[in-house]
Amino acid sequence: MLTNRREIQIEWGDCDPFGIVFFPRYFEYFDASTNALFHRALGYPKAEMLRRFKIAGIPLVEASCNFKVPSSYGDLVVVESFVTRWGNSSFSLSHKLFRGDTLAVEGVEKRVWTVRSAGDPSEVRSQPIPKEVIEKFS
Amino acid sequence: MLTNRREIQIEWGDCDPFGIVFFPRYFEYFDASTNALFHRALGYPKAEMLRRFKIAGIPLVEASCNFKVPSSYGDLVVVESFVTRWGNSSFSLSHKLFRGDTLAVEGVEKRVWTVRSAGDPSEVRSQPIPKEVIEKFS
Amino acid sequence: MLTNRREIQIEWGDCDPFGIVFFPRYFEYFDASTNALFHRALGYPKAEMLRRFKIAGIPLVEASCNFKVPSSYGDLVVVESFVTRWGNSSFSLSHKLFRGDTLAVEGVEKRVWTVRSAGDPSEVRSQPIPKEVIEKFS
Amino acid sequence: MLTNRREIQIEWGDCDPFGIVFFPRYFEYFDASTNALFHRALGYPKAEMLRRFKIAGIPLVEASCNFKVPSSYGDLVVVESFVTRWGNSSFSLSHKLFRGDTLAVEGVEKRVWTVRSAGDPSEVRSQPIPKEVIEKFS
Repeated sequence: MLTNRREIQIEWGDCDPFGIVFFPRYFEYFDASTNALFHRALGYPKAEMLRRFKIAGIPLVEASCNFKVPSSYGDLVVVESFVTRWGNSSFSLSHKLFRGDTLAVEGVEKRVWTVRSAGDPSEVRSQPIPKEVIEKFS
Repeated sequence: MLTNRREIQIEWGDCDPFGIVFFPRYFEYFDASTNALFHRALGYPKAEMLRRFKIAGIPLVEASCNFKVPSSYGDLVVVESFVTRWGNSSFSLSHKLFRGDTLAVEGVEKRVWTVRSAGDPSEVRSQPIPKEVIEKFS
Repeated sequence: MLTNRREIQIEWGDCDPFGIVFFPRYFEYFDASTNALFHRALGYPKAEMLRRFKIAGIPLVEASCNFKVPSSYGDLVVVESFVTRWGNSSFSLSHKLFRGDTLAVEGVEKRVWTVRSAGDPSEVRSQPIPKEVIEKFS
Repeated sequence: MLTNRREIQIEWGDCDPFGIVFFPRYFEYFDASTNALFHRALGYPKAEMLRRFKIAGIPLVEASCNFKVPSSYGDLVVVESFVTRWGNSSFSLSHKLFRGDTLAVEGVEKRVWTVRSAGDPSEVRSQPIPKEVIEKFS
C-alpha cells in the first residue's frame, strides 16, 4: 500500500483566536495531501493527470475528521496518506496527522473519478477508474 | 427545536479551478452557521458568550460533510442549522445547505463546552454545559 | 459615481491568534466587494458578465491596503466601493471599510479587462473596456 | 542583508475558477515568509519571539502587491524576503516571488513592533524595536 508522508508547517494565518488551527484548514491540508499522494503514485502532478485521463477531477462526496489534539502556530506536523478502498468509480483515502508521535487528527475522504459529458461539457459524471491508475498505488 | 437559517453568497474566491466551491469552505460556512445559531439562541455574540460563561470556546471533536450537489460562484444558498443532541459537556449540530429546493450539502459537527484550567490557563478541559444555555435552544 | 455599500460580519475563522482579522482576509472582502459593485452596476452577476462580454475575467495587477484600526470576531463592518479611474483596458477601485463611523481599512485595486486569445485559449490579453460597461457606473 | 528563500507549492485550493492563484493567497504566502525570515534571523519561531520580547505581535499597517505573471496549481515558486528599512518602531519588508527565473509577484509590507499596554492588556501600542533584533538581520 503506497503511503505518502508530507510535512506541514502550521502557519499563523491557519490559526484562530483560540490560538489553535482553525479546523477547516485540516481539510485543506488533507486535500493537498491527496494530490501529493497521486503525484507520488503517478510520477506527475494532478494537472497532468487531468489531461492524460481526460478527467474533470476527483471531487469529494464525503469528508470527515476526528480532532484529537490541537496544534498551534509554529508546530511542524506530518500527514500520512493512503488509499483505503478502490471502488468502480469511487475511492476512499485515510489521512493521519501526527504531531511528534501523537496522532492529532484523523481524516477520511471519499472521492469520485469524474469526466465531463461529451454532449454538455458543463455536466460531469463518474467513470470507472483506469486499472493503470490503481496499479500505481500497490 | 430552534433552527437558524442563514443566506450565503458563494464568492469567486471560495471556488476552485474546477469552478465549484472548494470543499473546506463548506466547513467554514458551517462554523459561522453554528456561531450564528448560538447568537440567535442567546441573544448576544460568541465573544460575549465566552466572557459570560468564562469558557475558552466550543472546539470541534468531529466534523463531516456529504457533498451531494456542487455550487458555483454567484449561487445564493441557505444553511439551516440546529442542535441534534445535548450531552453532558458535548453536543452535536446538523447543517443543511440548500440551493433553491435542492439539499446540496449536509454537515454534522460534534463540539465540546471547554474551559481553561484554573491552574494552567494554557490547558483546556470539558465542562458540563449550563442548563440555561440548553434551554435557550428549545 | 456609483458606490456600492456592503455589510460584512467578521467571522471567527477570519481572525488570527492575535484576535484580529488576519489581513489577507481584507483583500478577500474587497475582491467580493468589487464583484458586488459590478453586479449592482450591470444588473447581473460576474459569471453572466464573463459570458456576455466573452472575457476571461478582470484579474488584478496591483492591490494595496492601509490598516488603520483592527477589527475582531463579531464586528459588523461596511465596505464602500467605487471605481476611481477608467483607463483604456485597465481600471482602479477604492474600497473603504468602516467599523461604525471609523475608517478602519482603505484598499486600492488596479484590474485589467482580459480576454482569451483566439489562437490559444490558455493565453489571455487585455482589451479595451466596452463603453456600455463604463456608462453603467456613472 | 539577511535574505530568506522559501519554496511554496501552489495548491489546488489556492487557485480560483480562472485557474490561477487567488490573489489574497499571495499575501498569506508573504505573511508566512516574514515569519520564516524572523525565525531564520533569530533562530527560534515567532511564538518564542512573542514571549521573549513580551510583544503582542508585528501587525501590518500597509501591504501591497504587484502581480506580474500568474501562477497555477502545481507550480513550484520561490519567495525571497528581506527587511528593506528599520524605523524606530516600524519596519518594511520586500517579498519577491519567482517562478523559475521570472519575477512573478512583488510584495511590500510595513509592520509595527507592538506591545500590550500594562494598564489595559486589550490595548496595544508601538514600541522601539530592540537593537539586538535588528542586529540579527545584518
